[in-house]
Amino acid sequence: MDLPVSQERLREDIERNAEFGAVDVPEGRGRTVRTGSDADRRARDYLVERLEDAGLDVRIDAAGNVGGRWSPLGIGDAAPVAAGSHLDSVPEGGIFDGPLGVYAALEAVRAMREADVSPERPVDVVSFTEEEGGRFASGLLGSSVAAGRRGVEDALELHDGEGVALGDALDGIGYRGDGRLDAAAWDAWLELHVEQSERLEDAGVPVGVVTTITGITHCEVTVAGEANHAGSTPMGDRTDALAAASEFVLDAERAATGRVAADSPAAVGTVGSLDVSPNATNVVPGRVEMGLDVRDVDAASMDAVVDRAEESLARLERERGVETALSRPFDLAPTPMDDRCREALHGAGDDAGIETLDMHSGAAHDTMHVAEVTDAGMLFAPSRDGISHNPLEWTDWADCAAATTVLAGALARLAGD
Amino acid sequence: MDLPVSQERLREDIERNAEFGAVDVPEGRGRTVRTGSDADRRARDYLVERLEDAGLDVRIDAAGNVGGRWSPLGIGDAAPVAAGSHLDSVPEGGIFDGPLGVYAALEAVRAMREADVSPERPVDVVSFTEEEGGRFASGLLGSSVAAGRRGVEDALELHDGEGVALGDALDGIGYRGDGRLDAAAWDAWLELHVEQSERLEDAGVPVGVVTTITGITHCEVTVAGEANHAGSTPMGDRTDALAAASEFVLDAERAATGRVAADSPAAVGTVGSLDVSPNATNVVPGRVEMGLDVRDVDAASMDAVVDRAEESLARLERERGVETALSRPFDLAPTPMDDRCREALHGAGDDAGIETLDMHSGAAHDTMHVAEVTDAGMLFAPSRDGISHNPLEWTDWADCAAATTVLAGALARLAGD
Repeated sequence: MDLPVSQERLREDIERNAEFGAVDVPEGRGRTVRTGSDADRRARDYLVERLEDAGLDVRIDAAGNVGGRWSPLGIGDAAPVAAGSHLDSVPEGGIFDGPLGVYAALEAVRAMREADVSPERPVDVVSFTEEEGGRFASGLLGSSVAAGRRGVEDALELHDGEGVALGDALDGIGYRGDGRLDAAAWDAWLELHVEQSERLEDAGVPVGVVTTITGITHCEVTVAGEANHAGSTPMGDRTDALAAASEFVLDAERAATGRVAADSPAAVGTVGSLDVSPNATNVVPGRVEMGLDVRDVDAASMDAVVDRAEESLARLERERGVETALSRPFDLAPTPMDDRCREALHGAGDDAGIETLDMHSGAAHDTMHVAEVTDAGMLFAPSRDGISHNPLEWTDWADCAAATTVLAGALARLAGD
Repeated sequence: MDLPVSQERLREDIERNAEFGAVDVPEGRGRTVRTGSDADRRARDYLVERLEDAGLDVRIDAAGNVGGRWSPLGIGDAAPVAAGSHLDSVPEGGIFDGPLGVYAALEAVRAMREADVSPERPVDVVSFTEEEGGRFASGLLGSSVAAGRRGVEDALELHDGEGVALGDALDGIGYRGDGRLDAAAWDAWLELHVEQSERLEDAGVPVGVVTTITGITHCEVTVAGEANHAGSTPMGDRTDALAAASEFVLDAERAATGRVAADSPAAVGTVGSLDVSPNATNVVPGRVEMGLDVRDVDAASMDAVVDRAEESLARLERERGVETALSRPFDLAPTPMDDRCREALHGAGDDAGIETLDMHSGAAHDTMHVAEVTDAGMLFAPSRDGISHNPLEWTDWADCAAATTVLAGALARLAGD
């Protein structure tokens, strides 16, 4: 199948979208698009206009999720295939993270129509509300509603730090619609996203096909020692919470790296936050609180890293006399992608002569929620130097177009042309 | 010489003083006495009353330092010997840290008078302003003026966090006097203080004679890596500033402990403060700033610990690719105590049949400033479990009296009876 994806049209949409919430930075191109902001309204308005220009029927749900449907005459009420991503950004984020997936889905539909593809299923182009999080939730907000993981009313009652409810914020920009986009009603789902690491660039391959989105565990770790005078307390009489915590940081790093050397190259372990009290240069630290992030494509491997973290704490209790505690308040299992979707993506790459590479996703995506209720797949475009969430985030336009070509071909396959 | 030190009289003074700024705590006895507070005024008023009751001539200098002089008739203008400490406290501090040294000096004078000691020099009882620091300076404020290290006018212009000048704060409680107590005019100086560590308790000895007050170096250390996504950045592609900083914390601990094992048992090294940015569980740390405190009785040994800290940073730059910096904004040389004062203290202990033990001080004291301009000595009373700066700080009354007996005997020797 020869699908005439237009690199220029795709680029124009992404560059127009990049104007909304654009920030002035010395290098790169940044934007800040928070849920309910004026930039959010303008980005949504432009998307709706472009969906309608392409002849799609636009629907806004109660959580502000935007859907545009291409439903050719005569296909009845077959379950649609859907594709998309999100338009919001982190503060001073890049211009590709999210918008590439939304406008690539739209470009794929335009290309299918121009190629006179005759699908047996409708095709939905979707933009989810607040994927990045930060104002109303910790992320993946719109997709959690579409997948039924979070109720519509619960979502609308989420409040930001200033007491504003999501429902009112969406009302304020004219994007509180009705009902909900139901991901369970989709026959299949695909999301194109920037890779956010350097594997495609290192391999010289333009498209990645995601095998699994890693699970995520967050552990809260406390190490309690004894705060003491840094001058009058001899080294041998101390129970220094920070020295003990430092051993833990290195043990956690080794636990994840050790697994890399073994059978799970996707494992990562990060002590990203660490707070000392009383945190004065002249006082032996009495208490340290840390946040540990563990991810892998395999749940048992994640458990093994957490086990080793717990063994480290047990050793520190014995050897350094500290008291420790570890809780695991957040634990999301790995999400394998559906075989049918992966095959559609590889097949579309083969059709178009575009090389594809299997890889996992270490970052979380809306597709994690969608995959709970229907067959889902993801593909990646290369990130220059692996940079994202930063105005230096960049994906070459030719790579954007190549990935969009694979997305379009896979949608055509899944839609049954 | 038989000096009739009264444990009961000393205890009454310390317990009355403990009422000023007393805090309600579940265990122990705490007080908060900040410079210029109502508690400070009441503590000073009581001291002045007790000095006058004992027949001493009271003088308040411009920095609020309080002096009470016993000058028997007929001794002319001989240079006085002086003793004392401070009455202010850290927030929720204990009742002995400071007041023991002030009221022991007063009790020593009372005991000398009752024993009809006939000194050849006047004896001064002294209480210095703001030893602990925290409101107007970082500590040792009054003694810095008495030793001429800081000018009177400079001191009076020091401002607290709310813009109040020291001079006005002292005016407010009626303790801005005239001129300055001049430590250089003293023939010798002694300070009794609580030990703040467990060496006397461990040795079962009631009185410590300080050999040297350790020097103090503060280093500011920065480790810069690369902040990155904790999920999408493989372990091998990271420059984790916190993992590198953790190696530094342990290297600094080993550097100080290694010196303990070698020739300098007084060496201590503490990373007391550590701040991570961005400090989020799901972000690989990009930057860490640390405060390192190094102390020893020997300046070359302190330099050696700092050298090893710098070697650690150089290794981390090579092995982990971080960028590092170390500065040394605060550096105070060790202060050896005067031989004549140490001999007077040991001799007084021998006279009274009270065992004394040579030991260094790891904490800073007003005596560091006084020792710059005259012969100075210090003695310690035991701290239960080494605890200080805490309502659980405790020294048995019998130990307070034993140390006061040694102080009185040493003052009598130095005053030339």
